[in-house]
Amino acid sequence: MNFCPNCGAPIRLEIPEGDDRKRHVCSQCGKIHYQNPKVIAGCILEWEEKILLCRRAIEPKYGLWTLPAGFMEMEETLEQAARRETLEEACAEVDHLALHTIISLPQLSQVYVFFRGEVKEGCFAPGAESLETRLFSEPDIPWHELAFETVTRALKIFFEDRKSGQFKTRVEDLWIPRHPLKKHKC
Amino acid sequence: MNFCPNCGAPIRLEIPEGDDRKRHVCSQCGKIHYQNPKVIAGCILEWEEKILLCRRAIEPKYGLWTLPAGFMEMEETLEQAARRETLEEACAEVDHLALHTIISLPQLSQVYVFFRGEVKEGCFAPGAESLETRLFSEPDIPWHELAFETVTRALKIFFEDRKSGQFKTRVEDLWIPRHPLKKHKC
Repeated sequence: MNFCPNCGAPIRLEIPEGDDRKRHVCSQCGKIHYQNPKVIAGCILEWEEKILLCRRAIEPKYGLWTLPAGFMEMEETLEQAARRETLEEACAEVDHLALHTIISLPQLSQVYVFFRGEVKEGCFAPGAESLETRLFSEPDIPWHELAFETVTRALKIFFEDRKSGQFKTRVEDLWIPRHPLKKHKC
Repeated sequence: MNFCPNCGAPIRLEIPEGDDRKRHVCSQCGKIHYQNPKVIAGCILEWEEKILLCRRAIEPKYGLWTLPAGFMEMEETLEQAARRETLEEACAEVDHLALHTIISLPQLSQVYVFFRGEVKEGCFAPGAESLETRLFSEPDIPWHELAFETVTRALKIFFEDRKSGQFKTRVEDLWIPRHPLKKHKC
């Protein structure tokens, strides 16, 4: 942030009185512009024990598979956001929605909220942001072609819970290795 | 938002290509400035079956009672945010933290995330944003002096769960009546 969204004057990074961290403060009108993490809401949806995945038609991660999910909009509830994203990306409506997994990604300042549920009447199709939508049984999940680590984590938890017959809401943190170890060539 | 935080030029409200809702778009650099809901993280903390509440030393709702909670910061996890807010507002550390209640407030574009847990060693004191911190047994909760409807809701769910001996994670929505009915004078 370089300029004040309120008055257009240059922004200064400084610690306001009574605060303990640097904020974007306007040099003219004095307004403090706080920044906060973003919420991404999505769905793990079953139909005949298979899971609905979407192949991304947009960057980042064009061509990779993901769960229907996206940024929560203003004036939405979490559930509305998850349903809207599912409709937009997979043209699917949802039955029996229940909260499943919440994953904080502190390095990206994001919180993922995944619900689980069922594809209504088994109807789905690629939306504008998807190249393809398909149902995968557990052994066929394209683990090495998943777009996001959060999707991998949420699916693994889902299958563990489904196997045990007990679904619990989980809250997890995901830290991205800053300097991943280079793989040795064999 | 009136000016572009990136280049300082005037902002236009328009629907970008491929989008379906109005966004803040820069008239000069073309950058789209999305707005998203904010997350508030907090704790319902017990000590000897009593609940820790803080009396607010800041606006809004100066002088009313609340659970320790506040806006999640960038680069935090949900749990870190809940612990930090508890330390700041009640000078308390937390044991046995578990996710409890998530409440969407669509009209304020906020999501509250409450954990439950225990006040570590029963130690607490008012932080800079609190006039007073105190433990309340269930019958003594100052229901009519609580600062926020989300706090009331989270506490009610907590006591229901405690009574039943079964804590479940709940996800709820809270709609604020736009035109509350006027009370008749008796």
